[in-house]
Amino acid sequence: MDTTEFRKRGKEMVDYIADYFEQLEERQVYPDVEPGYLRPLIPDSAPQEPEGFEDVLKDVERIIMPGVTHWHSPYFFAYFPTASSFPALLADVLSGGLGCIGFSWAASPACTELETVMLDWLGKMINLPEEFLAGKDGEGGGVIQGSASEATLVTLLAARTKTIRRVQSENPELTEADIMSKLVAYASDQAHSSVERAGLIGGVKIKNIPSDDKFTVCGSALKKVLHEDRTAGLIPFFFCATLGTTPCCSFDRLLELGPICNKENIWMHIDAAYAGSAFICPEFRHLLNGVEFADSFNFNPHKWLLVNFDCSAMWVKKRSDLTNAFKLDPLYLQHCHQESGLVTDYRHWQIPLGRRFRSLKMWFVFRMYGVKGLQEYIRKHVKLSHEFENLVLQDKRFEICAEVTLGLVCFRLKGSNELNEALLKSINEARKIHLVPCHLREKFVLRFAICSRTVESVHIQFAWKHISELATELLNA
Amino acid sequence: MDTTEFRKRGKEMVDYIADYFEQLEERQVYPDVEPGYLRPLIPDSAPQEPEGFEDVLKDVERIIMPGVTHWHSPYFFAYFPTASSFPALLADVLSGGLGCIGFSWAASPACTELETVMLDWLGKMINLPEEFLAGKDGEGGGVIQGSASEATLVTLLAARTKTIRRVQSENPELTEADIMSKLVAYASDQAHSSVERAGLIGGVKIKNIPSDDKFTVCGSALKKVLHEDRTAGLIPFFFCATLGTTPCCSFDRLLELGPICNKENIWMHIDAAYAGSAFICPEFRHLLNGVEFADSFNFNPHKWLLVNFDCSAMWVKKRSDLTNAFKLDPLYLQHCHQESGLVTDYRHWQIPLGRRFRSLKMWFVFRMYGVKGLQEYIRKHVKLSHEFENLVLQDKRFEICAEVTLGLVCFRLKGSNELNEALLKSINEARKIHLVPCHLREKFVLRFAICSRTVESVHIQFAWKHISELATELLNA
Repeated sequence: MDTTEFRKRGKEMVDYIADYFEQLEERQVYPDVEPGYLRPLIPDSAPQEPEGFEDVLKDVERIIMPGVTHWHSPYFFAYFPTASSFPALLADVLSGGLGCIGFSWAASPACTELETVMLDWLGKMINLPEEFLAGKDGEGGGVIQGSASEATLVTLLAARTKTIRRVQSENPELTEADIMSKLVAYASDQAHSSVERAGLIGGVKIKNIPSDDKFTVCGSALKKVLHEDRTAGLIPFFFCATLGTTPCCSFDRLLELGPICNKENIWMHIDAAYAGSAFICPEFRHLLNGVEFADSFNFNPHKWLLVNFDCSAMWVKKRSDLTNAFKLDPLYLQHCHQESGLVTDYRHWQIPLGRRFRSLKMWFVFRMYGVKGLQEYIRKHVKLSHEFENLVLQDKRFEICAEVTLGLVCFRLKGSNELNEALLKSINEARKIHLVPCHLREKFVLRFAICSRTVESVHIQFAWKHISELATELLNA
Repeated sequence: MDTTEFRKRGKEMVDYIADYFEQLEERQVYPDVEPGYLRPLIPDSAPQEPEGFEDVLKDVERIIMPGVTHWHSPYFFAYFPTASSFPALLADVLSGGLGCIGFSWAASPACTELETVMLDWLGKMINLPEEFLAGKDGEGGGVIQGSASEATLVTLLAARTKTIRRVQSENPELTEADIMSKLVAYASDQAHSSVERAGLIGGVKIKNIPSDDKFTVCGSALKKVLHEDRTAGLIPFFFCATLGTTPCCSFDRLLELGPICNKENIWMHIDAAYAGSAFICPEFRHLLNGVEFADSFNFNPHKWLLVNFDCSAMWVKKRSDLTNAFKLDPLYLQHCHQESGLVTDYRHWQIPLGRRFRSLKMWFVFRMYGVKGLQEYIRKHVKLSHEFENLVLQDKRFEICAEVTLGLVCFRLKGSNELNEALLKSINEARKIHLVPCHLREKFVLRFAICSRTVESVHIQFAWKHISELATELLNA
């Protein structure tokens, strides 16, 4: 394909995507296919001779679309939102076209420098303490990770290295293995599974801190476990606080937890993967109070800030904590500026070496929406979740299971778990809307997450009417 | 931005990218900017009010382009290639538009199933042993990772878990920490820095195996180290063989190493990040002989197979080895098909949870080039590297430093390292072409990698004439 054909096909693809969005409401949100549906539809092996673009595009509609879960349908209320916006799509085309790999400053200076500045912009938008910003000569700064899982892993590893070095300098007789075997990390029993996974990967113990009846971790709960573990000879080194847990969007009490971590020499990381985007609105910023005690903070603009996946924003107060944990510098990756102090080589901040030019997406989205446009978008979602909450509250058969703070409503039929499992099954089998469940303590709960960029009151009303009718059918049966 | 404006702006962006490629040869391959150049060019914080697309696009030319290293310029000979092709760009637009997040089968069945089948296609293209393919009821299969670094890390972690469980079942008195402290992984002294990093992350010892005078690891070298380490009470568990090392594209001797690893219960992973793409050509497939002994294999279509970053292909013989190492299943990620045996939930195969629909890129590229088109592309690059090699060999002032097998030529002026450092400096400062160096033993060496999709003989001839003239200037000075 030459540039002339690319111009033609590229424009056809742009139209295909525009058509897709215009007609998305008519597509069934969750597919009918069964596991293994795709293999029989396509050849066993790649073709020897080239095929034309038109044949491939035809197959997209025939083979791919029947198996797509439409995350951007206004009838999609599952998981959490994943971002989608036109400015981000445009930026991604540019990023793909340039195709530079920004593992070091020299590998593409613009790629690295725009990222540092965009993370400063975003940090200011949520009013992060200045220590987290790079500025011209700060010690902190931000980086784009692929996912919150990677942010948690990277900070846990940095904390692990830092702690091993500290303990070894205080107790030179201890080996690294001795220390590793005593290290223990913590997170809420409501924290995302990726936190437990980070512990598994890093080869350290990871323990749940019991959350209270609001599903939040408070200072006394952490203190109790720390006391037990210190007494047992363990070395607490990392606490991952969650703002906006995945099951029910609860918030750990940073203002109690932060001072404990600081006093006890424990790295506090904050995972605000979903909720973080809301902090651009002054009325939600109080949820982030206490971030000043943290060593690192992360949230996902690719969830709720209209920057398409992947774009997980992470900040640290001391970037040397990250780079010290990972730095390896083979000659083929060195460049003449790297020791200048002015330069950021992001490969030392992350697990992979290669990285795309993802900050373009942030730049396009922040400029083409403006802070006000982004705030409006967040507020619309929160308003819609309260609209749904009120509909649930008006129906005596149902109960709300956790406080509705942002765009997630946890609800269930008053009654057994089996009853609620049956309700969810009938909802998802009807294919008109799509939800996923969670457990809150022993209860099976339905999660209703406001997800789509184009979801409006009319879709919320439709969804509730539909759920309510299915509940009636179920209760009558 | 509504769909009408997206149609318009999307097409303008397609034209911008087409123009970029048409004029790429005229852009200076390596930028003139100094560290910190970008920050003064843009505002301190995000705008409150939205800005127009035209203003943003104007700033791309004004602010971004002056700081871009043009990886796809035909004058770019640094690092290794990073893939770029129009079919992949088109697929990425589609992937961005659909914007589904395929962490589980249910989250988007097409996203998971196309990936499994594409990895089978690609496995067949390089004639991987059937055990690595998923097929309809195989135990193996492939997955797209973000980078070779992640593939190495994931397999090392899987091997770690598998070994700990085995050793514990044989020696129930040993704790996990005891075993961890004895585990040792290996790779060539020529292996990529990401292998050492995987060891650091996984909290295990990692040792270099000395390569021979051809920079390859042979069986006897591994055997010697294994013997020493077993005698010292260590537990060897993982060996990462490299096919196509980063410094000089050398190949470890799989046929000697594989049987040793199999006999000694050591997981053999093969990192063929760059070289792997060449195995689609029958004349290069012999370089992969011995893969039948490996537990896992990885190469990067995003390097040399025209599938834009990121797309790192990894296969395992037993996918349960991966999933057993990581599996955590919170309720909100469970779905009714997951225990059916037919379903792949790729979140258990990787570090992050979220994942884009990257297999579309493979599907578009494989179909629109055909296997023959891809083979032609590989062969063109190999031919050009031999053309450059011959130019070097004809100049008595220079020497070739390692066998030229694929698209990389390592060369230097006969003489001191300082002389060669000065030569590289003058090459990169002239800004007409871009190279990076490496160390081969004590020697400072220049790497000339065939990178661009559009590079032709004329660019090779130009590059050599330029290098040769700069060498003359240097030697005369």
